[in-house]
Amino acid sequence: MPSSADLLEPLRRGEPRALGRAISWMENGHPGARDLMASLWPHLGRAVVIGITGSPGAGKSTLTDRLARALRAEGQKVGILAVDPTSPFSGGAILGDRIRMQRIAADPGIFIRSMATRGALGGLARATQDAIDLLDAAGYDTVIVETVGVGQDEVDVVSCVQTCCVVLVPGMGDEIQAIKAGIMEVADLFVINKADRDGADQVEQELTAMKSLAPPRPWDPPVLRTVAQQGEGIPELLDRVREHGAWLRAHGGLARKARERARLRFESLLAEAALRRARAQAGSERLEAAIQAVADHAQDPYTAVAGILGEP
Amino acid sequence: MPSSADLLEPLRRGEPRALGRAISWMENGHPGARDLMASLWPHLGRAVVIGITGSPGAGKSTLTDRLARALRAEGQKVGILAVDPTSPFSGGAILGDRIRMQRIAADPGIFIRSMATRGALGGLARATQDAIDLLDAAGYDTVIVETVGVGQDEVDVVSCVQTCCVVLVPGMGDEIQAIKAGIMEVADLFVINKADRDGADQVEQELTAMKSLAPPRPWDPPVLRTVAQQGEGIPELLDRVREHGAWLRAHGGLARKARERARLRFESLLAEAALRRARAQAGSERLEAAIQAVADHAQDPYTAVAGILGEP
Repeated sequence: MPSSADLLEPLRRGEPRALGRAISWMENGHPGARDLMASLWPHLGRAVVIGITGSPGAGKSTLTDRLARALRAEGQKVGILAVDPTSPFSGGAILGDRIRMQRIAADPGIFIRSMATRGALGGLARATQDAIDLLDAAGYDTVIVETVGVGQDEVDVVSCVQTCCVVLVPGMGDEIQAIKAGIMEVADLFVINKADRDGADQVEQELTAMKSLAPPRPWDPPVLRTVAQQGEGIPELLDRVREHGAWLRAHGGLARKARERARLRFESLLAEAALRRARAQAGSERLEAAIQAVADHAQDPYTAVAGILGEP
Repeated sequence: MPSSADLLEPLRRGEPRALGRAISWMENGHPGARDLMASLWPHLGRAVVIGITGSPGAGKSTLTDRLARALRAEGQKVGILAVDPTSPFSGGAILGDRIRMQRIAADPGIFIRSMATRGALGGLARATQDAIDLLDAAGYDTVIVETVGVGQDEVDVVSCVQTCCVVLVPGMGDEIQAIKAGIMEVADLFVINKADRDGADQVEQELTAMKSLAPPRPWDPPVLRTVAQQGEGIPELLDRVREHGAWLRAHGGLARKARERARLRFESLLAEAALRRARAQAGSERLEAAIQAVADHAQDPYTAVAGILGEP
């Protein structure tokens, strides 16, 4: 078993195996995780982090691929984190993901990882933040975080990337429904993908209408069109991402995002640690007995929890 | 301000105002919440809880409406909980929801509530469980929990209803993507809604293929077709829900679901309580200073959390 000191150097050199192991450490709460993060901490803050979010079928993966390849063409090293609270069940889609991953992972300048931990409360958001830091410390220039974007965890993840792109597609029925989940406020760019399909104008009109209903924001998120499958609109998307980055730098936005991100990480780690401590203090036997008492309707869950915590 | 004792009787009589207030108490962690739950606890376990989940645009709301009306026609009282980690931003969709709610909420035998708390970690799942209990104690015969079904919170919610219906629609592009998020394993029924559209056969084939790849389960989830807008397939759906309920009763499934539900509630309450205690012990000044130190890259978040908890 390597120690965190053994992992540090290969990780800083960007070796994929060290990176993969370090991400697993963070996901699983390995004893060396904390030391590793502490020793990396001074080396962070260089990578640009882009979020790609939107409903299933919007073409996020293809868009992410195209962005990654465009950045590679500039000589950048690119990390991709596919955040997906998925199950091991759905063979088809996972298989598709794997094929995609193998294709672009053949490029040593791209590191791709699927984040799908379904562990502790808020653990997915926290593990993704850790993975972003590890990629940053390993010298990746840009990290793309791709997520379905529904659910609080995912909103937390994309709310503190540098530039959050919300992807929509024409003709997906009640399209606007898909972007209800708290991601409107965190969108820095709207991307209408598959824009060669009928209905792109309608989506753009709906977006414009929604924006006009919202409270004004200092950065008005632009609406772009792409056909990711053909690579159309990708250079323009990168231009806009950079424009937004420049705007953030000019308006103190990077410091604000850093604070939001620090708050999120701190609070989810605090929740995990507090729960771990409460569990350890109670012991699994007492915990299981309390859960059984709730299941049997012998005790309500509030009273059971107070009992475990030794509160009146 | 009413006490929990004041709320108990009108709540048990099923008065909507008392019910609404009690749900808010649970959502907000009102001081009387725990007493109220303790006094209701002996009266629970009568309601049938049905989950309706699926991607945006699948017609879940219409299906829920139709189910509710069919149950009303049998003389049942019906509670509807629309779980939606939504934001107050997206005016359009919310407006549609409100119109729908007003229409069916005019029926005094239907109680409808949107659950959208974005508070504590895991808080949405916990608050929804509380609301199910309150409806149960208030004499509602069936509770329908409608949710977008992506994200761990929502998977938690639907994983412990009595019968979980996963709704799909033909022709929504990469449809199977939408059901990746851990809900395949918790599906008790698959509903292909808008089944009069082209592509219903294809969705059914994909579903069958996915099921054949999955490990065998004691209850093989049937696949049904509905056109909820026209009310087609609703009686058959209710029949299947009841068939599944009978199967659960015959095979010890209700006790198993009760244990899962107790575990979920207990663990999310424990996490909330442990975090609350850690925060109170640290005090907001120390917490804010720790977060700022992380944002400034002066300290890594793991070390900052250990410091707050007084751990080495």
